[in-house]
Amino acid sequence: MKKTGDDILKKVGLYVGRFQPFHLGHLFAVKYALKRVDELIIVIGSSQKSHEPRHPFTTGERITMIVRSLEEEKIPRSSYLIVPVPDTEVHPTWVSLVEFMCPKFNIVFSNDPLTIRLMEESGYKVIQVPLKNREFLSGTEIRRRILKDLDWQSYVPAAVRDFIMEIDGCERIKVISKNND
Amino acid sequence: MKKTGDDILKKVGLYVGRFQPFHLGHLFAVKYALKRVDELIIVIGSSQKSHEPRHPFTTGERITMIVRSLEEEKIPRSSYLIVPVPDTEVHPTWVSLVEFMCPKFNIVFSNDPLTIRLMEESGYKVIQVPLKNREFLSGTEIRRRILKDLDWQSYVPAAVRDFIMEIDGCERIKVISKNND
Amino acid sequence: MKKTGDDILKKVGLYVGRFQPFHLGHLFAVKYALKRVDELIIVIGSSQKSHEPRHPFTTGERITMIVRSLEEEKIPRSSYLIVPVPDTEVHPTWVSLVEFMCPKFNIVFSNDPLTIRLMEESGYKVIQVPLKNREFLSGTEIRRRILKDLDWQSYVPAAVRDFIMEIDGCERIKVISKNND
Amino acid sequence: MKKTGDDILKKVGLYVGRFQPFHLGHLFAVKYALKRVDELIIVIGSSQKSHEPRHPFTTGERITMIVRSLEEEKIPRSSYLIVPVPDTEVHPTWVSLVEFMCPKFNIVFSNDPLTIRLMEESGYKVIQVPLKNREFLSGTEIRRRILKDLDWQSYVPAAVRDFIMEIDGCERIKVISKNND
Amino acid sequence: MKKTGDDILKKVGLYVGRFQPFHLGHLFAVKYALKRVDELIIVIGSSQKSHEPRHPFTTGERITMIVRSLEEEKIPRSSYLIVPVPDTEVHPTWVSLVEFMCPKFNIVFSNDPLTIRLMEESGYKVIQVPLKNREFLSGTEIRRRILKDLDWQSYVPAAVRDFIMEIDGCERIKVISKNND
Amino acid sequence: MKKTGDDILKKVGLYVGRFQPFHLGHLFAVKYALKRVDELIIVIGSSQKSHEPRHPFTTGERITMIVRSLEEEKIPRSSYLIVPVPDTEVHPTWVSLVEFMCPKFNIVFSNDPLTIRLMEESGYKVIQVPLKNREFLSGTEIRRRILKDLDWQSYVPAAVRDFIMEIDGCERIKVISKNND
Repeated sequence: MKKTGDDILKKVGLYVGRFQPFHLGHLFAVKYALKRVDELIIVIGSSQKSHEPRHPFTTGERITMIVRSLEEEKIPRSSYLIVPVPDTEVHPTWVSLVEFMCPKFNIVFSNDPLTIRLMEESGYKVIQVPLKNREFLSGTEIRRRILKDLDWQSYVPAAVRDFIMEIDGCERIKVISKNND
Repeated sequence: MKKTGDDILKKVGLYVGRFQPFHLGHLFAVKYALKRVDELIIVIGSSQKSHEPRHPFTTGERITMIVRSLEEEKIPRSSYLIVPVPDTEVHPTWVSLVEFMCPKFNIVFSNDPLTIRLMEESGYKVIQVPLKNREFLSGTEIRRRILKDLDWQSYVPAAVRDFIMEIDGCERIKVISKNND
Repeated sequence: MKKTGDDILKKVGLYVGRFQPFHLGHLFAVKYALKRVDELIIVIGSSQKSHEPRHPFTTGERITMIVRSLEEEKIPRSSYLIVPVPDTEVHPTWVSLVEFMCPKFNIVFSNDPLTIRLMEESGYKVIQVPLKNREFLSGTEIRRRILKDLDWQSYVPAAVRDFIMEIDGCERIKVISKNND
Repeated sequence: MKKTGDDILKKVGLYVGRFQPFHLGHLFAVKYALKRVDELIIVIGSSQKSHEPRHPFTTGERITMIVRSLEEEKIPRSSYLIVPVPDTEVHPTWVSLVEFMCPKFNIVFSNDPLTIRLMEESGYKVIQVPLKNREFLSGTEIRRRILKDLDWQSYVPAAVRDFIMEIDGCERIKVISKNND
Repeated sequence: MKKTGDDILKKVGLYVGRFQPFHLGHLFAVKYALKRVDELIIVIGSSQKSHEPRHPFTTGERITMIVRSLEEEKIPRSSYLIVPVPDTEVHPTWVSLVEFMCPKFNIVFSNDPLTIRLMEESGYKVIQVPLKNREFLSGTEIRRRILKDLDWQSYVPAAVRDFIMEIDGCERIKVISKNND
Repeated sequence: MKKTGDDILKKVGLYVGRFQPFHLGHLFAVKYALKRVDELIIVIGSSQKSHEPRHPFTTGERITMIVRSLEEEKIPRSSYLIVPVPDTEVHPTWVSLVEFMCPKFNIVFSNDPLTIRLMEESGYKVIQVPLKNREFLSGTEIRRRILKDLDWQSYVPAAVRDFIMEIDGCERIKVISKNND
């Protein structure tokens, strides 16, 4: 697409996550990215999925988690946009789907090796976000803790903790983990 | 989904359009709705489509048009959210897809008879937006005017006019209108 | 959809299963439900699947199993309808797909926790069918027994046993269980 | 699939229609076919479509129309099965989808030239149903008459007439015929 | 993807068409392109379609038409590859699907304005093939002539003429042009 | 489809593989088949997949592997055609998709039990290729060896070895094997 002088001058970042749920590692990454760009596009990946063990929450629920968490942190809404992007059956077309669904961006923030590789192959500059406390700050670990009734509340923003309780999310995670036939 | 006291107290509106392109009629509707709700979810319908005569612009381009137009009008970004929603092959499942993709809402604004019918059948309260200058303020008419090199700039916000020129949008509309084999 | 007095007076039940294959537990559930409603809609779930380890039989084969088993039990065909419903990629739209594909119903019979949750969230009354002999009366167990050449015939209606042999179904289950590359 | 002696002896017919709506021509065809087979599978084609000008009714509504019309005619439910089959994107795979979704059949009844061609190419015997009063007994004509407030009631079974009024179907046909943007 | 010295030195062209059917204009374009590259990838576009008025032939039939026509012209098979590529629902992801399905290429031959625009936006060099006798050498015109029993044989290679008769293609075009309900 | 005398006389074989990557077992099978037919159609199965642990390579890359390997073996390009075929969601429709995508064929070569069963049920003659050195000559084993930095180069044609290094394929296989959340 035609690039204008204006687009080139403004630094727009892209940060991709599945946010199942949105946790403190995601929050750190958003803040890290916002220090380096004028505007951040937060892409909700695998947006079509929910009610599965690895993907418990809907797109709408994940939007709510992000908006409330960033509000809590006094991050102004004018500094970011949220865009849900579904998976593509043919994986290498995913970058062009992101380009289709999002306003123009020129820097990518990611720690996922495949996202980094695909984005770099398409010519984007990719910045790796330093990982903090990786052992606990992962969606897999937090969902495991919810399932086992262990402390998970310490690893997500207060707004996410409240919202998951509001929608009875722990019960949902338990229900969908059952193997039924 | 479980509704909380908080959700019930807050008035969240939903406004659906295709925005091919975003024009002054859409802007009027957004303002009309914003006077009646605490927050507005603007749904970009048929989000999967672009580069077709009736659907020239991508989702990313439509997001940019909306954001820039509302900025120009000093409408604070904290008052609205933009959510792209694709069509469903089985039409009557579309309402549940909107519910899946959006944060909770309780009022719908629309002038489209089918949207009104489907939303009312699902139990939503629907408010019809008064139509202004319907003859000119329609996507069909504006695309026709672009194709025929007639004045179309008067019917869209200045930000949309500039953006369409920035991305060479008139040329695209002409290219995709050609019947090739 | 508009409900008429007639629809409200008539009790129509919905019972969902995958029926891979239709076994004595399913037969018990159908009889249990038929005692409580005027008519029963039997939904064949995951109807698009077959020739996979967890989904060996086609929709047509599953229809045949159900019809022949209920005939064997002298259950009149006028008391039930069979409707195949495929999975939806976006899970929470599945209830609205069931509503799209089936005549109106007002009671749901199920033992599957997720089905119960989704149906109740959509406002349906759900009745849990008492489980009998759950250890053996499950599709997973019966497919495992076929694979291992153990007795499986005792857990399905005679009509299903005959039909599976007619179509050489045990051989198919063995073929598709092989991990090939 | 393996054919058994039993399957070969029993004559099972297949009759395909879209039934938008089910009219007297369809009823005649069903009766015509039932005289020539032991059991008839009525396939609801384009089952995924509804709420479009050429496809106003859902699958569930079409099932209801057929069941009530045949009941009215005292045709026993044990003589037929109804199976909804969606369109395939790759048209020539449609015959194998029908085979996947239906119990075994050995005769096809149709007047549609493409269905006849595809079924004959796949080796099925096809019987053409004599057309009666083709000018009026077509879905296109009946939908046109509903739209124009002309007499349409004379061309459908009484059960269909009542059902369309019950669900406010004429209003739906008018709503979806409007060209909105 | 990583480019090697070898790939950069070798000129590989891409030529896209729907080939419904393959006609003398397509043959001219293939020859024109082959003079300018070391190898040509012939992409069969809209490969998923057939048995529709604008798309009568299957992918396999179109491959046969191309192979036989180029054989007739003594064009060695080692100079070209045929790759079928389906349409994408999200149009701007089509270029990346072509890149996914084809060996590396570095020049594109086309006369279609949208293909030219999309390929140029993705950074490819595009060469326009001079059009010859455009009035007659178009798929639309040739299908129209088949339908009307006018001379169409003069506008396709002899191999295509023979093949269409072999598969009874004129009859198919007539059958699918009928508007049935 | 109508068969002509010419089609019946010419022996056209079909050989299906996923070729992730193309290895010496595949090469042996191609040579084995080419001795028994006039022309061979090599179907690239699961063509829509790549960048997954079991499916690392794109369709274009797999085409390049096959073409270069057969060139290296002096197998003339006029003796074979390569056709990519995606998976079908409804498995038993896959044979008709292969028929849709390929020129006519009359013999199938395969070692995969499910392919053999499906093809035989559709009436094709299937010849089993004698397996050589099955322990090492499997895609699963070769991908495992790449991942573990063991010798894999001995099990693929030299052209495949060179190509995988050219595109940095070992690194890709390692990246996509990581379990990220």
